[in-house]
Amino acid sequence: MSATRYAYLGPEGTFTEAALRQLPEAATRELAPMVSVPAALDAVRAGKAAAALVPIENSVEGGITTTLDELAVGQPLMIYREVLLSISFALLVRPGTQLADIKTVTAHPAAQAQVRNWLSAHLPEAQWESAASNADGARLVQEGRYDAAFAGEFAAATYGLEPLVTEIHDAENAQTRFILVGRPARPSAPTGADKTSVVVWLGPDRPGALLELLQEFAVRGVNLMLIQSRPTGAGIGNYWFAVDAEGHIADRRVAEALMGLKRLSPDVRFLGSYPRADVRPEELAPLRPGTSDEEYVSAADWLNRCQDGRF
Amino acid sequence: MSATRYAYLGPEGTFTEAALRQLPEAATRELAPMVSVPAALDAVRAGKAAAALVPIENSVEGGITTTLDELAVGQPLMIYREVLLSISFALLVRPGTQLADIKTVTAHPAAQAQVRNWLSAHLPEAQWESAASNADGARLVQEGRYDAAFAGEFAAATYGLEPLVTEIHDAENAQTRFILVGRPARPSAPTGADKTSVVVWLGPDRPGALLELLQEFAVRGVNLMLIQSRPTGAGIGNYWFAVDAEGHIADRRVAEALMGLKRLSPDVRFLGSYPRADVRPEELAPLRPGTSDEEYVSAADWLNRCQDGRF
Amino acid sequence: MSATRYAYLGPEGTFTEAALRQLPEAATRELAPMVSVPAALDAVRAGKAAAALVPIENSVEGGITTTLDELAVGQPLMIYREVLLSISFALLVRPGTQLADIKTVTAHPAAQAQVRNWLSAHLPEAQWESAASNADGARLVQEGRYDAAFAGEFAAATYGLEPLVTEIHDAENAQTRFILVGRPARPSAPTGADKTSVVVWLGPDRPGALLELLQEFAVRGVNLMLIQSRPTGAGIGNYWFAVDAEGHIADRRVAEALMGLKRLSPDVRFLGSYPRADVRPEELAPLRPGTSDEEYVSAADWLNRCQDGRF
Amino acid sequence: MSATRYAYLGPEGTFTEAALRQLPEAATRELAPMVSVPAALDAVRAGKAAAALVPIENSVEGGITTTLDELAVGQPLMIYREVLLSISFALLVRPGTQLADIKTVTAHPAAQAQVRNWLSAHLPEAQWESAASNADGARLVQEGRYDAAFAGEFAAATYGLEPLVTEIHDAENAQTRFILVGRPARPSAPTGADKTSVVVWLGPDRPGALLELLQEFAVRGVNLMLIQSRPTGAGIGNYWFAVDAEGHIADRRVAEALMGLKRLSPDVRFLGSYPRADVRPEELAPLRPGTSDEEYVSAADWLNRCQDGRF
Repeated sequence: MSATRYAYLGPEGTFTEAALRQLPEAATRELAPMVSVPAALDAVRAGKAAAALVPIENSVEGGITTTLDELAVGQPLMIYREVLLSISFALLVRPGTQLADIKTVTAHPAAQAQVRNWLSAHLPEAQWESAASNADGARLVQEGRYDAAFAGEFAAATYGLEPLVTEIHDAENAQTRFILVGRPARPSAPTGADKTSVVVWLGPDRPGALLELLQEFAVRGVNLMLIQSRPTGAGIGNYWFAVDAEGHIADRRVAEALMGLKRLSPDVRFLGSYPRADVRPEELAPLRPGTSDEEYVSAADWLNRCQDGRF
Repeated sequence: MSATRYAYLGPEGTFTEAALRQLPEAATRELAPMVSVPAALDAVRAGKAAAALVPIENSVEGGITTTLDELAVGQPLMIYREVLLSISFALLVRPGTQLADIKTVTAHPAAQAQVRNWLSAHLPEAQWESAASNADGARLVQEGRYDAAFAGEFAAATYGLEPLVTEIHDAENAQTRFILVGRPARPSAPTGADKTSVVVWLGPDRPGALLELLQEFAVRGVNLMLIQSRPTGAGIGNYWFAVDAEGHIADRRVAEALMGLKRLSPDVRFLGSYPRADVRPEELAPLRPGTSDEEYVSAADWLNRCQDGRF
Repeated sequence: MSATRYAYLGPEGTFTEAALRQLPEAATRELAPMVSVPAALDAVRAGKAAAALVPIENSVEGGITTTLDELAVGQPLMIYREVLLSISFALLVRPGTQLADIKTVTAHPAAQAQVRNWLSAHLPEAQWESAASNADGARLVQEGRYDAAFAGEFAAATYGLEPLVTEIHDAENAQTRFILVGRPARPSAPTGADKTSVVVWLGPDRPGALLELLQEFAVRGVNLMLIQSRPTGAGIGNYWFAVDAEGHIADRRVAEALMGLKRLSPDVRFLGSYPRADVRPEELAPLRPGTSDEEYVSAADWLNRCQDGRF
Repeated sequence: MSATRYAYLGPEGTFTEAALRQLPEAATRELAPMVSVPAALDAVRAGKAAAALVPIENSVEGGITTTLDELAVGQPLMIYREVLLSISFALLVRPGTQLADIKTVTAHPAAQAQVRNWLSAHLPEAQWESAASNADGARLVQEGRYDAAFAGEFAAATYGLEPLVTEIHDAENAQTRFILVGRPARPSAPTGADKTSVVVWLGPDRPGALLELLQEFAVRGVNLMLIQSRPTGAGIGNYWFAVDAEGHIADRRVAEALMGLKRLSPDVRFLGSYPRADVRPEELAPLRPGTSDEEYVSAADWLNRCQDGRF
């Protein structure tokens, strides 16, 4: 029954599964690993899953372009939650393998960027082979195809392997951000520390449009957290933009900025408003004066009085 | 009965009266000359006149600061109409006076700036004396106190004088703009070529506030026609601003900009939305794409669908 | 000999003379009262005076438009100094006159705005007559034409009058700002608290030009202190702007902003960089990061290295 | 001898080699295939190659993050040229293979995104295996490991394969942009249609910095062609930006914008000014008024006169 099934980027044992298990509701859901991000999202679109957890951004590798591109086109989806996971790798081996025995290592290519320094320091001679996922790499080690795999330590048990080395990560603070995606519905209520995601096509031959986009947010005091350009596919020089802004679509300043964006470019897609995973409401800087809901309401009241001649 | 009385900056025979008579409804009103702009506006405030016509801006002398300052403080008033009058002076004399006879000339000081070149070319020896108004200058000529007065040609008959020279104006295109001011009420419907006036206090120590003010308009595609700074009276360096913007408070882009202004500075006073006297709707440049009421409505519909999860 | 003569807006006994005497060098100059601001400035242009002190702005009445307009056209002049003078009036009478005796009062029209409340409280029945200057009003009282004149207390001795009441000023902190104007020369060295004045014509049909003007300053971190619009004389809707900006033309951020202004509008006139009278260098807020001369020099060095491929 | 050696992202038969051969000088260079982008760039840094050609952007997949990231850190490099190559794939097979025989296909993962539709239409059952490069995929087909490889048609001869199908590309106008990278030196002279690349770190906790960055360019009339955000590695939410701007560092408007950028953020790296491959000078839109070198020079002359008091 789809309402209780959460898809995720599989296979079992990936960081995505670890992230998914951070959600309290995961305990009561059927967790369904999918072979790819598009497969996970299509399961949601097809009603075969209530939601899907997929990676969207990595602090070392950057935006997960497959996810971004999948959200930007096709049947609309909506982001309901985000999960931040600190990423550190374990070197998984078959029981008994020693460091000196390792001639071949594998993992998803994204992992390679995060263990490169460690590899050249500790296994400079080992040959790298890419795997479809970190968990798949572990499976291939289990099958004897490679000597060692970089994966989350939690994947060891799944594949009958041992963590020979743990806490491997070239970069301090390596994190991956995941999003829980579902079919469009009314966003959850604001928490006070929310984020709103949109994608927007600005069209070619509008060199100033990106500045105008930023000003739609800036003039309403809405800070941007992330802006990513992606190719439209129409040739070099044609881009769309994925934007994460502070605040919730229910916040008036955000709502007004979104409407400004819509007028600036009709090709805008709302991707959701959801709680931020990086900060609690009480940790946020105060709003810029003049941008609170109260001030929006007060200004609207004033405008009404002006329009009615009651002042 | 005040509902049929229109006050104006008198005395009879001023350009203000001439401007007032351009309004069709003036034919059915009692026209009451007042001794000063404050007196004319106070008549409206006190309910002794339905409206007052006063000068607001002159293309040679600039803003009429008395009018601006009077509108900015005290009991609120509202602008309902504007009238543009081309200004050219006649040299009024008692019948029989020749140019060579003129030793003294008079008029309101504002007139002096507009006939200075003519004076130095044709009456270089004449002594200037300021009068309280151009019409008052004509009266003083009638009384024999001065030899000639600069005033509108239409004032000759009122004071038993003759226009010795007409069409005197140093500057081509000299114009004065007048406004018809009443007590606050619902503004008249948009005509398609309207103007909205506000005054706003930005407060001291906000060096960037003027830029923010302009951006509130610019981001919504609302052009400004005029911005004037005036002292708040709190010392050098403290100003408020009078702004004339294109469009009507009923236009959504204008309404949103005004609300932005209100949030930027609570000390904002709406002075009215009224038809432009300088241009007809069909002469206006097209709106910036994305700023029409239709696009505002469409964007609001889209936002509602996003907020409801229907997309 | 003109090099030692300073012209000023006369006659003797005006606030302008009082302001001029605040300049240390005034003690060694011949101070020449002139009948008008244009006359004072023309004396400088004609080489008959080394400099002229004229009012430019009043905290109650606003910009002195005659001065602004005179600086904006004709043979270029340059501002070298500014002087701030607190304005308070004395009621000057012939010796023996009592308050109850006063039926007529006089002064320059600008004074009227600053004593209006006092007048209606203390001399509600007195008739106002305008004088060409406050000092001239005092002279007319001396001659017996009016009963009392509002003027600076220092004017009493000049005209054989007595200050019947002193410290009259409706507004607290009433101030007038005066400028010392000379022929163009190299501006004096920066003091750390300087001001730069320019006038600029933006041309008609450029509704966004004022915003662009402000951005030329804002992007370089140069705060504006004052912006005034003045009519060009070409008809309602055509304006030029007088701008006072923080900083000195020798400051790189100011120099770059001025060049930006020049490119934005070729019709720009530099009016001078001179010490601020309102604040000392140590009282100024710190510069915005990235806008000091050191940072400008450092960025230019970096650019040179980039252009040379040395990085 | 390194001065005649050009490294490129190998192996032989890649699109990169095809792009490199579009450069006239390639005919007289030793072309050295390297195993990776970092290896190609490091060959330049180590003086083992005069330059390296590497992909920087693909119209389907977006920015080549490995290249961006390599340029942003480490010993500085400089971009001297860009090459645009239309991308279309051939399906390479061992002689005699028919479409019905193909059970496994391979190519670089980036190719997969560009032939996905074709695959599902024509080889829906074929299993995809990723290769280290398209050319490497061809080699693996030659060795019999897979049945078919997607690669440039030009790679067939190198690996003894036949193009079974040609002109395969899901997206019309699929293009890859390559850059020729060398050690820093004086950029080549402007051609009139140039591009300037920089990377800049804006620092965390500066939500408005991106807007300021864009304004540094916008106020000088410099259009941006591309802006990409990349993670700094310091954790989610920390980004640097790669910017391609129109114009050449020798253009004054670009030089001034770059210095503004340097002051905004000291962490800026110049990556070069080089001819645009997408457009010829005569096809460019005219510059915004006020931004040509002539106008910069003229404004600087004016400023000098102002500073010297000669006006």
